[in-house]
Amino acid sequence: MPISSATKIDPTRLLTFATAVYVAAGMSQEEANLCADTLVQADLWGHQSHGVMRLSWYAARLKAGVCDPKARPELIVDAGGLALIDGHDGMGQVLTAHAAREAIRRAKAHGIAAVGIRNSNHFGTALYFTLMAAREGCVAFLSTNASPAMAPWGGRKKTVGTNPWSWACPAGSHPPMVLDIANTGVARGKIYLAKQKGQSIPEGWAINAAGAPTTDPAEAIEGIILPMAQHKGYAIALMMDMLSGVLTGGGFGSEIAGPYQAERRSRAGQLMIALNIEAMQPLTEFNARMEELISQIKSVPLAQGFSEVFYPGEIEARNEARNRAEGLFLPDDTLADLKKVAAKYGLLEHLPF
Amino acid sequence: MPISSATKIDPTRLLTFATAVYVAAGMSQEEANLCADTLVQADLWGHQSHGVMRLSWYAARLKAGVCDPKARPELIVDAGGLALIDGHDGMGQVLTAHAAREAIRRAKAHGIAAVGIRNSNHFGTALYFTLMAAREGCVAFLSTNASPAMAPWGGRKKTVGTNPWSWACPAGSHPPMVLDIANTGVARGKIYLAKQKGQSIPEGWAINAAGAPTTDPAEAIEGIILPMAQHKGYAIALMMDMLSGVLTGGGFGSEIAGPYQAERRSRAGQLMIALNIEAMQPLTEFNARMEELISQIKSVPLAQGFSEVFYPGEIEARNEARNRAEGLFLPDDTLADLKKVAAKYGLLEHLPF
Repeated sequence: MPISSATKIDPTRLLTFATAVYVAAGMSQEEANLCADTLVQADLWGHQSHGVMRLSWYAARLKAGVCDPKARPELIVDAGGLALIDGHDGMGQVLTAHAAREAIRRAKAHGIAAVGIRNSNHFGTALYFTLMAAREGCVAFLSTNASPAMAPWGGRKKTVGTNPWSWACPAGSHPPMVLDIANTGVARGKIYLAKQKGQSIPEGWAINAAGAPTTDPAEAIEGIILPMAQHKGYAIALMMDMLSGVLTGGGFGSEIAGPYQAERRSRAGQLMIALNIEAMQPLTEFNARMEELISQIKSVPLAQGFSEVFYPGEIEARNEARNRAEGLFLPDDTLADLKKVAAKYGLLEHLPF
Repeated sequence: MPISSATKIDPTRLLTFATAVYVAAGMSQEEANLCADTLVQADLWGHQSHGVMRLSWYAARLKAGVCDPKARPELIVDAGGLALIDGHDGMGQVLTAHAAREAIRRAKAHGIAAVGIRNSNHFGTALYFTLMAAREGCVAFLSTNASPAMAPWGGRKKTVGTNPWSWACPAGSHPPMVLDIANTGVARGKIYLAKQKGQSIPEGWAINAAGAPTTDPAEAIEGIILPMAQHKGYAIALMMDMLSGVLTGGGFGSEIAGPYQAERRSRAGQLMIALNIEAMQPLTEFNARMEELISQIKSVPLAQGFSEVFYPGEIEARNEARNRAEGLFLPDDTLADLKKVAAKYGLLEHLPF
């Protein structure tokens, strides 16, 4: 079958394929399946930047040995509602899912729980893990640190990561409410796109290498992307590094390596907090109140250019339902990349397209 | 002495005066002193929008009976690391300080703790309370909901508050690192200022009453301020309402009344989380790591137009040191307002200017 963006891909077959790649890279079937699911799930939500296009990056890190497919999380603090895990350079997805299960279990016992991870790796999308807790009747928070992507506000050297964070909770008869925020103002891809189209970019997106504001996408690519909401995004990113890196005893600031670098340990860390809603009020009552909140915001009159008001997480849930029913539509370069990975691991016959 | 902005005011005398006003409004000496301190402290940090200019608003609410100067917090959930308080319409500052002390005490016993408050009031500045925990060796989070200030993204009716939130932690030999974020993009005052000066405002600040983007400050004042970082600020604000209102069993969404309305109960709620750093790693080690993080960010080369890189909370600490040494400089209309309050409560001789 020719590789073409017109091909709709069965997400179940894509999951099986990605699992096989991770198994070939040295992971157990169960953990490979989890890591593959985080990628396919991101594509289902419509977050293709965090979907199977990243499979080759993660596989390269496993192959290079900077990420250990067999690492076992070690519990180094075990104090009731509080736990700290040394991830020993395992897959961030495996470690964070483990931390999420621990946080949920401990929150059920203690009302609230926090689980930190040090010596972890990039974990994919934060909402994957906070949703695990929301589905178990918890309110959840998760932060991670990441490789330097922005300068501290007023500087012109990258030392602060995008350091994403997420909150999630159940929402009654609706899919959970969930936010997942990176603290840079704009995705790098949008600047590349402007350059390709020969367009200028708005002020506030980036500074050039000399540290001056720029509207020239070429200068921006050589320069540094600015945080979201100016200094606020920088301040939030730094706090997420404190939670994920400083507090967990892991790497922080410029010590963190990104998932597209196959030559360095990541040293990223995470902090997961779960709160058992039933300890505060009956879950049915919480759910009814969430439905009322959502009804309030969805019933307001619309602003110009909008056809609907969404609550956080609603678009992802809708994308998933559609993509599961109709199949996934992946860009040509992702398909080509998956074919290369398949060839490398002798898995061409498992390709789902 | 004439009321003049050239007058530098002794913050200790200002505190005594504001305390006397709150006592005259029916509060105990101790709680009046706390509430007065939150205002003077905001002025010391340079956040005059949350300083003594609000004294008359709070006093009016106490006088109107919608905020109860004698309310006692009632513990309605007491489950180790988790607690829920009914504030019975007491002062938000008194209730949140109480919740902060409870969260710190419970975090020391259980590693992590969360304390929710329902039937509270506007609490002033979030960082006042997270700093209480940072000074006790905790990492702290605090959220509140607030009266509707923005439309849900894509709508044109205010149903979502600014819903501020804060994180804080100790920072070794430096003053604590702390952020305190409202989720609207711009303070309303900046739009009034643009109108006064006959200037247009940038796109992205506001929509007009018809729900169309506007750069006309007059239209913006009649319209609605947009969230920070577009849809992200809206999503964060909604999550903070979930934590502060839905989860605590208090008011949420359009049910919340603001501090400048003297005719309605507030129904605002708060959620405070404290994590005892010593349960994760020695505090001295955490502090050394924070100093390293701060050193990293403060030593980067500067962007154009900047003379220094600050960590979150550093500017406030520097302002406080200067204002304590030199005295506070308050705007003329705040001085006039304080004089009116003093006259109303027969406290003219206590005025610190």
